[in-house]
Amino acid sequence: MGQTLVEKIISSHSGKTIQQNEIAIVNVDAVMASDTTAPLTIKSFEEMGGTQVWDSSKVVFVIDHAAPAPNERIANLHSLMRDFAKKQGIKLYDAGSGICHQLMVENGHVKPGQLVLGADSHTCTYGALGAFATGVGSTDLAAVLLTGKTWIKVPETIKIQLNGTLQPGVSAKDLILFLVGQLGIDGATYKAIEFTGEAITNLSLDSRLTIANMVIEMGAKAGFVDTIGLELPYEFEPIKADEDAKYESVYAFDVSQLEPQVAIPHSPDNVKPISEVEGSMIQQAFLGSCTNGRLEDLHEAANILKGKRVHPEVRFMIAAASTEVYLQALQDGTAEILTRAGATFLPSGCGPCVGTHLGVPGNDEGIISSTNRNFRGRMGNRNSNVYLSSPAVVAASALFGKITNPKKLLKEAVK
Amino acid sequence: MGQTLVEKIISSHSGKTIQQNEIAIVNVDAVMASDTTAPLTIKSFEEMGGTQVWDSSKVVFVIDHAAPAPNERIANLHSLMRDFAKKQGIKLYDAGSGICHQLMVENGHVKPGQLVLGADSHTCTYGALGAFATGVGSTDLAAVLLTGKTWIKVPETIKIQLNGTLQPGVSAKDLILFLVGQLGIDGATYKAIEFTGEAITNLSLDSRLTIANMVIEMGAKAGFVDTIGLELPYEFEPIKADEDAKYESVYAFDVSQLEPQVAIPHSPDNVKPISEVEGSMIQQAFLGSCTNGRLEDLHEAANILKGKRVHPEVRFMIAAASTEVYLQALQDGTAEILTRAGATFLPSGCGPCVGTHLGVPGNDEGIISSTNRNFRGRMGNRNSNVYLSSPAVVAASALFGKITNPKKLLKEAVK
Repeated sequence: MGQTLVEKIISSHSGKTIQQNEIAIVNVDAVMASDTTAPLTIKSFEEMGGTQVWDSSKVVFVIDHAAPAPNERIANLHSLMRDFAKKQGIKLYDAGSGICHQLMVENGHVKPGQLVLGADSHTCTYGALGAFATGVGSTDLAAVLLTGKTWIKVPETIKIQLNGTLQPGVSAKDLILFLVGQLGIDGATYKAIEFTGEAITNLSLDSRLTIANMVIEMGAKAGFVDTIGLELPYEFEPIKADEDAKYESVYAFDVSQLEPQVAIPHSPDNVKPISEVEGSMIQQAFLGSCTNGRLEDLHEAANILKGKRVHPEVRFMIAAASTEVYLQALQDGTAEILTRAGATFLPSGCGPCVGTHLGVPGNDEGIISSTNRNFRGRMGNRNSNVYLSSPAVVAASALFGKITNPKKLLKEAVK
Repeated sequence: MGQTLVEKIISSHSGKTIQQNEIAIVNVDAVMASDTTAPLTIKSFEEMGGTQVWDSSKVVFVIDHAAPAPNERIANLHSLMRDFAKKQGIKLYDAGSGICHQLMVENGHVKPGQLVLGADSHTCTYGALGAFATGVGSTDLAAVLLTGKTWIKVPETIKIQLNGTLQPGVSAKDLILFLVGQLGIDGATYKAIEFTGEAITNLSLDSRLTIANMVIEMGAKAGFVDTIGLELPYEFEPIKADEDAKYESVYAFDVSQLEPQVAIPHSPDNVKPISEVEGSMIQQAFLGSCTNGRLEDLHEAANILKGKRVHPEVRFMIAAASTEVYLQALQDGTAEILTRAGATFLPSGCGPCVGTHLGVPGNDEGIISSTNRNFRGRMGNRNSNVYLSSPAVVAASALFGKITNPKKLLKEAVK
């Protein structure tokens, strides 16, 4: 019988042909832990009697969630990571280097067809490369550090076909927000998702990372973006699902008429077309995160904000997804355009996304954010209201101090 | 009898001739409060029955000390400031705009000969312009908000004459560290200090701000940097002390042979020539603050780090003193040079200086910092060791992971 992508990758990593709903023991190609999870992973590893990780070249640590350290306790957790990484010969990206998921992709720690685990729920991002990547707990990761293996129950697969051409001002983030809204926050629980169709295969790498990043917002175990049209800085052998692979379900949408989408408080699946929420007041705007902190995203905002100035009562913050992204934005003038427009650049990293520091909102404030979650209190204040959107909507909304459709601004820019 | 600068300025602001040790009621030209003090100032103002500030055009609020907000409590204090400023028509510089003292100077909120109060101890910085500027408590500032006046006991004045030409790699920060070491942390308590001599009058505005910034580290009420050679973007009438003014004491130093200076833990007056502390290990380097976060300081570091890469075990962080400084560093390539060298830019503001967020060190770490205070715990961890130095020493030390004299690097750069 034909195989889905997840069946193929798990089979190739377990040494035998495995089908959905079976349990496999797999070899892991790479693992990642951030400052949120690495300290617990290290503790578990040592409690398990671990002395040397199975393969230090396959382990990556990143200090990104609360970086630079906002307090003494976290500073000492960072020190613990540095000490362990140094002793074990593990690659560690320190505070300011960028977001774990961006660094994994950018620096080739994950490649198409691989099986990668991270102690972070958005590890699913690497599905943009056609890798099987999923988040695991710190203790599970510790066991992988010891053995290089883990067990996986092979997920069933949902296929999503997106047809049509996107309108100007509509981007990958709108596609994935739309889908999260359609399927719901538990609509793909423990499923793999394969994305295909021209609206997907026309996307850049940056945009594909946005799509894969948010499959966890539907509960999915992993996502796979069709690798047709994918450009990477190295050669790779695309893996394709078999024609007769068995899918749990198949969805098809024509997205030609899709409006920009906004997830309103307090859930990523509480998604509305922008026309239903335009005019909602915002005091803070954030562009960044593993969802939308890449060069394409910064370009999108700069395109809207060039020569303009954000609303005086809006704090507009940007965190590039990595130092490399920041450097490119320095070189091509994007950082200057955005700074002149009133943006404040935060250190490359997670920024205010997880509410640990760097832009916790005040009570009753509205925040437009290019991030992936708006659960109550996610950004550090249960009395604030976080709206999720594309970079274009973030930029347009920052300009007017209220949720704004970027469409008319893009028309102006063309004239 | 002749008058010192402080006697002249206080006289002109009290409407009669006043001498040292007398108490004067003065008109205040401008007041400033930051997010550390404005919330208490607002509370006191309202407790005093205040409804409208005496002159909203003379009041400036700046959100810089813990900005962007690191937690909900501080976020709501920021909101309190914004609400009050909006209601009162007060100019507010929001998170990411820069450090209060830099913004006051850069945007002309303080000018030569004026009398300015700030609810921050480093308000003395404006003495670089030949203004009388001093820090007051939040409650005192609230009274000024009501009345536009305060009382001052006129300080006696210490005159410090610095002669000679500085060696390459030696800068204004070394001068003021040297003086703090000489006079001690209480060596100028409640005194004004007048700085003069060719080693002072040859300095740029940026450097003069560094000098005036640290007079509080000797306990001084205010400092005055000789305005000879001072270049400002507007015309001004220099005020000079009378030839026969009476000084509490006069110091003269020849600084031609001065080495770079370092204040070792845990006091700004614990100052050593760098040759005595070279080689001390550091894990964090910070370039920024109201002492040394200006363009000249960034240039100094870029000159040393161009084409090089900081030590892999050093976190090198930079916070420009203002968005304007950051923009200039973007435009002239300085930001790119420093980022390529491994620096992480923090939002323009106080950065890790006051230990509220953005780079709290771990236990037992050494930090080289261009800031003004290294009291135990100042940077948020009582078990870390902060060394104060010039930007050149910060950059050279970041390069080698240990305290390093920039002299030999500058020689290399010239070759």
